[in-house]
Amino acid sequence: MAAAEPAATAAPVAAEPAPAVSGAGEADVPGAKPKELSKKELRKLERERKAMEAAEAKAAEDAANFKFYGDFPLNQSREVTDRVWTRLAELTPALVGKSVLVRARLHKSSGKGKIAFVVLRQALETAQVVIESSDTLPKAMIKFATKIPRESIVDIAGVVRAVEPAVSCTQSDVEIVATSVHVVSRALSECPFTVENAMRPGEVADEEEAAEGATAEGSAAAAAASAGEEGSSSGLVSQVVRLNNRWIDMRTLANQAIFRLSSGVCTLFREALLAKGFVEIQTPKLLAGASEGGSEVFTTTYFGKPACLAQSPQLYKQMAAACSDLERVFEIGPVFRAENSQTHRHLCEFHGLDMEMTFNDHYHEVLDVFSDLFCSIFEGLQTRFAREIAAVKSQYPHEDFKWSNPALRLTFAEGVALLKANGYPDKDPLSDLTTAEERTLGALVKAKYDTDFFILDKFPMAVRPFYTMQDPANPDLSNSYDFFMRGEEILSGAQRVHDPAMIAAQAEGKGIPLPGIQSYIDAFKHGAFPHGGGGVGLERVVMLFLGLNDIRKAAMYPRDPRRLTP
Amino acid sequence: MAAAEPAATAAPVAAEPAPAVSGAGEADVPGAKPKELSKKELRKLERERKAMEAAEAKAAEDAANFKFYGDFPLNQSREVTDRVWTRLAELTPALVGKSVLVRARLHKSSGKGKIAFVVLRQALETAQVVIESSDTLPKAMIKFATKIPRESIVDIAGVVRAVEPAVSCTQSDVEIVATSVHVVSRALSECPFTVENAMRPGEVADEEEAAEGATAEGSAAAAAASAGEEGSSSGLVSQVVRLNNRWIDMRTLANQAIFRLSSGVCTLFREALLAKGFVEIQTPKLLAGASEGGSEVFTTTYFGKPACLAQSPQLYKQMAAACSDLERVFEIGPVFRAENSQTHRHLCEFHGLDMEMTFNDHYHEVLDVFSDLFCSIFEGLQTRFAREIAAVKSQYPHEDFKWSNPALRLTFAEGVALLKANGYPDKDPLSDLTTAEERTLGALVKAKYDTDFFILDKFPMAVRPFYTMQDPANPDLSNSYDFFMRGEEILSGAQRVHDPAMIAAQAEGKGIPLPGIQSYIDAFKHGAFPHGGGGVGLERVVMLFLGLNDIRKAAMYPRDPRRLTP
Repeated sequence: MAAAEPAATAAPVAAEPAPAVSGAGEADVPGAKPKELSKKELRKLERERKAMEAAEAKAAEDAANFKFYGDFPLNQSREVTDRVWTRLAELTPALVGKSVLVRARLHKSSGKGKIAFVVLRQALETAQVVIESSDTLPKAMIKFATKIPRESIVDIAGVVRAVEPAVSCTQSDVEIVATSVHVVSRALSECPFTVENAMRPGEVADEEEAAEGATAEGSAAAAAASAGEEGSSSGLVSQVVRLNNRWIDMRTLANQAIFRLSSGVCTLFREALLAKGFVEIQTPKLLAGASEGGSEVFTTTYFGKPACLAQSPQLYKQMAAACSDLERVFEIGPVFRAENSQTHRHLCEFHGLDMEMTFNDHYHEVLDVFSDLFCSIFEGLQTRFAREIAAVKSQYPHEDFKWSNPALRLTFAEGVALLKANGYPDKDPLSDLTTAEERTLGALVKAKYDTDFFILDKFPMAVRPFYTMQDPANPDLSNSYDFFMRGEEILSGAQRVHDPAMIAAQAEGKGIPLPGIQSYIDAFKHGAFPHGGGGVGLERVVMLFLGLNDIRKAAMYPRDPRRLTP
Repeated sequence: MAAAEPAATAAPVAAEPAPAVSGAGEADVPGAKPKELSKKELRKLERERKAMEAAEAKAAEDAANFKFYGDFPLNQSREVTDRVWTRLAELTPALVGKSVLVRARLHKSSGKGKIAFVVLRQALETAQVVIESSDTLPKAMIKFATKIPRESIVDIAGVVRAVEPAVSCTQSDVEIVATSVHVVSRALSECPFTVENAMRPGEVADEEEAAEGATAEGSAAAAAASAGEEGSSSGLVSQVVRLNNRWIDMRTLANQAIFRLSSGVCTLFREALLAKGFVEIQTPKLLAGASEGGSEVFTTTYFGKPACLAQSPQLYKQMAAACSDLERVFEIGPVFRAENSQTHRHLCEFHGLDMEMTFNDHYHEVLDVFSDLFCSIFEGLQTRFAREIAAVKSQYPHEDFKWSNPALRLTFAEGVALLKANGYPDKDPLSDLTTAEERTLGALVKAKYDTDFFILDKFPMAVRPFYTMQDPANPDLSNSYDFFMRGEEILSGAQRVHDPAMIAAQAEGKGIPLPGIQSYIDAFKHGAFPHGGGGVGLERVVMLFLGLNDIRKAAMYPRDPRRLTP
């Protein structure tokens, strides 16, 4: 079991000699005159002496047993060893009979006397360890193991053994029979909640959220939340408590999966676009003006000048593609919106997947690229991240996301017709969709076409920004589109106007003062390619692909009007 | 030449019938009594009539010739055609004799009478078009082509012809003999500078930069700069003028290359890390406190509460890797520094390539990953981006970047010894390196080891942040490192302390008040993996790999204490 032994030169904490205890011996100092003691005093001294001896014996036992159990000293990179660690994911029947060493979180433990069970957790996996009384193991090891606080990080060596499949761990057909148990990093006992509870399926209402702004005399739930305790007597952990302690909440298997999927969306997005000649860009987030002319911006002072945070990379990505000749560009970056909307799908800081590209004949060239892009992302998630999707489902059950390739494309008028025929007889074909109409349309499309993903093309001109190109055949319409997942909008985009006079005319038509957008107009004065694009929120794509009920579940450290920490 | 014809239903601007001109016919209105005219009046009328006729004839000729030349109507996505465009990069002798259609910028044009030359520009390429007088082409086409303003976007159809290689265009051994020339997007004549001038090698001093803050009575150079004119009589364009009109400056072949290389650095960075199991994360940029405890932060108001912009993702990436069990994470995101330093290598908003990972035995596991990472990036740039590197060199000559694989690793003490032996005899081995010492060390290492890239390990503890792990063998040193390219620091990193008590003690030792970092300390109380990481600035890597003299050349829209626009 050389592989399981700690670094040879590491000075084990438990092996430090216990400090010499001298209390009982003071009476023996040479030259001091012995003093008569009462029987009571003598008994007390005797008790103290025995306790000291027991502690010394325990320390000596622990030191002697350090190769079996104990706390490793703080890892300060003392030595490189040849130890090899096995991942929990590798613990399968193929390893039965083999010696392994694992480093993982202690998820929970139980047992006493002759046997103990420890459940380990690592990334998307859990596995069971058994510590059995035997001739070769010190008896104290069982007690030591069961007293390690949950969430501590341990190194456990042992031998893999086959077991009857059980559902309690992801590695359900093997267990490790421990030969040594060491603590790498000891957690404090007072965790605000157990990850075991945080992994229970089901939700607890967030009364605490409402109570957050209340006074100290507020509800018991608020008191529990602020004390960092579990927010519910059912064992379920409320969202406020989770988010207040997000670095612990992140350890649930579902969260491990969600944020690996989120990383996957970024990877698949870039893979698809790089393969089509796109260039990745970074556009400035500190701007001299409001990027979309709106008032809901965060402001700052930039070396004495007023500045604000970008609400979108709109102008910069258009310039990069159409005016600076990069032709096809994308960016993944933060987007800042000072909108005071507390909904399940809005964040004040989210991550935009933005694209912009030139085209030759028709903006449907852009739609074709985007349609392929999303099909690639969905396909990639389902094939490369099946394990992650399953992990999310085990805590947050949902139906698999469905789509067609190429993506279903309807006109806005067709969408309106569907709504008119199904509960919205008075729907005005030149007005935007409400959230309720979006949801209904999503359900109608799902029922009719069996897809959770579709494109709505040719939105009314009146509901789109001034830089949107008008439909040449119908001035009431525009060359613009939204994409939907599970009945919620995820992408908004359009052909953009690339003619400076037309930009100015359309801005004036919408009552936008020209001085505020002059630099935007000027950028198109020196020749510009016909172009179009769109932007999508990363957190929204992840939320909707996985059927989550709140965008905060797809943001590692969400920012909303009520939350700026941690 | 069907491929070269415009969309059939597109209403060509030039083909619109000229408005009926009636001035000369007014005297013939029936019933109006003819009036006697003086000879002078008659001659004037005659001149006007002839001018009108000439204009009508020209309009009719242009309309008749629209299949040869003219301005296409604004592209509003009227129709999908089967036209196929050839990229300038594809124009090689293999295409000689073939008909092609290209869409590109008009870089410059010359000639008159029987022949005209047009140079086109597209991405990293330029190519020549010849318009020759012939029986099949209207004579007016030559004049039309030479009058198109530079930077307009044109569609040119023609036949590829071999020529004697010349160096004036990147596609030097072929040219296009035009059969049609159409304007897709016409540039205004008054460009602030020509891209031809912006592509000249050589630099012009930026007196304008200093003059920017001056009054309106300032220097002529400042006036030229503010008027958006070329900043130099030498034909060279100054950096201030370039950056004021960055969307045009971006069109130089060198800039097209620099930002494709920048995209490449991101791609190669992620490829290498994803292959090693890293997860991409996004950490919040809006924070409740200063991320590194410093004062040089941009501040904002977040729904009534004070907030600031993240100076680094330090705590969040550590939490993600070591406390939230993602184990290996990276982020590419903006970093905000309100530092008033106007140097060639500082920006107030740059893009951080940040990594953080757990390790088992020793932080050199982290260094190994980072060393491999940078070798992958350098290798990938030189093999996949050779064309881009050549394009940068033609405007900004530099020596190829050299490195060794694995990367050269020296201790800080070894670096100091090199400096002591070469001009810095009094160098204190426990003080940080000055910029001059860094440069000298870079030159010494290059001379001795023939590499532009090396790692300096084991920095003095006193010059590193409170969360840096002490060297267990020497408390004056730390488990920390810097990476250097061409004698400038590009990465700073370390093993971090993962024990809350030690973090607190080290912070106190450095005089940092604990309340300000309590949430940082708390994150490590529930078990944390030994871990280390580092961060590097994207723009700095691009600048130093290409031997550029200013980080602004590697930032599309740089932000420094004097620049917040465009």
